[in-house]
Amino acid sequence: MTYCVGMLLDTGLVFLSDSRTNAGVDHISTFRKTFIFEREDRVLALLTSGNLAATQALVSVLRGRLSDETQPNLYSAANMFEAATVVGETLREVHQRDAAGLAAFNIEFNAALILGGQIKGEPPRLFMIYAAGNFIEATPETTYFQVGESKYGKPIIDRVLKRDTSLEEAAKLALVSMDSTVKSNLSVGLPLDLTCIHTDELKVALHESIDADNPYFAALRNRWSDALRTAFAALPDPDWLKGL
Amino acid sequence: MTYCVGMLLDTGLVFLSDSRTNAGVDHISTFRKTFIFEREDRVLALLTSGNLAATQALVSVLRGRLSDETQPNLYSAANMFEAATVVGETLREVHQRDAAGLAAFNIEFNAALILGGQIKGEPPRLFMIYAAGNFIEATPETTYFQVGESKYGKPIIDRVLKRDTSLEEAAKLALVSMDSTVKSNLSVGLPLDLTCIHTDELKVALHESIDADNPYFAALRNRWSDALRTAFAALPDPDWLKGL
Repeated sequence: MTYCVGMLLDTGLVFLSDSRTNAGVDHISTFRKTFIFEREDRVLALLTSGNLAATQALVSVLRGRLSDETQPNLYSAANMFEAATVVGETLREVHQRDAAGLAAFNIEFNAALILGGQIKGEPPRLFMIYAAGNFIEATPETTYFQVGESKYGKPIIDRVLKRDTSLEEAAKLALVSMDSTVKSNLSVGLPLDLTCIHTDELKVALHESIDADNPYFAALRNRWSDALRTAFAALPDPDWLKGL
Repeated sequence: MTYCVGMLLDTGLVFLSDSRTNAGVDHISTFRKTFIFEREDRVLALLTSGNLAATQALVSVLRGRLSDETQPNLYSAANMFEAATVVGETLREVHQRDAAGLAAFNIEFNAALILGGQIKGEPPRLFMIYAAGNFIEATPETTYFQVGESKYGKPIIDRVLKRDTSLEEAAKLALVSMDSTVKSNLSVGLPLDLTCIHTDELKVALHESIDADNPYFAALRNRWSDALRTAFAALPDPDWLKGL
């Protein structure tokens, strides 16, 4: 499995992905799931979950077409909607190519993607793209999308994240959300890729690779565990529990 | 969906269930999912998730047989292992009766149960029973079982619960875990049933029904949200985020 989260904020975008892939518990590997497409007029981050062969094929084709002027690609897209369309259409091509072969082995074609970024001329935008190649876009009421093992890390984001959360706080929040996921689910694991993009800079402001030796993430995990236990211990007792 | 949790502690057992059932989002109802079987030499709590028709049939048959001395039942079981066997076998009967009918409509027979309690002569025990009627038992390394929408509320339990946690603290923890679930998933909802059993009392020490008007649960939810936000705000920043 996988856990990826993308956040759309007033001041920019934050992305975090894990890097564990597994084909059964006896076949665990590390593959990066964050892919950056950047040039002077745009910056895009694509986070992938699902069948690794499908998402690798997708990224290979997307990259291979960047300099191919005969068809729409992520560098020719005039805006983020067009970019999401390019990704969705390319995913459909991969599906077309692989789905029947997979079906012969009773394997489902599955993929879920987060695409965010900014193309000169419009504000940053954030999309979630489904296996079928269709997609939804974050609106002012939506601050984030998750793909993969999303449930463990959702409650803390729901409680804290707002559109005016700073990139710094949002990045920490993504790490805390990831920590809850890694702690409860073996199929999500380090290293992590953290990517931050400031509105109107059209480039990656921060890309941090966080592995098990990262002293900050280790400290964050301990501090957060301690803080949760302290917060829990401070909760009041109800009258009806007092007599227990 | 459903969220149920059962905890086995040094001093007894704690159970919490929600009461929402849904057949699609346009058909939401309230059904209790905690069932108590109690007489002088034993106390058992059964928490149910899965197909409502299946779990209702199971409980009806289990109840109907309590005074039937011709076959094993929850009052004749000599110990909790036998009680879990009775529940598993009865679930297999329900499956036998209904599975083909469901299959004709492409509906999967699904059920997952938590059974805990104490029968005189042995300590309290806790089981999780699968749809196939087989079951596992909590060992000293396992403090709890969850069924249904378990992921949202798992991280906080993993961080706090130990075998020597008091019943009171465990009950609060179950409520906090439920709160995270209710907040993030519409298919889990109030009222809740909280059941606590003290070791060697052989009766229910506390059964509290908690609905939206319950002032304690409302206060707990607010306090916990505030505490999480405060704890999050107090987390340190890493050097590499400072320049962001």
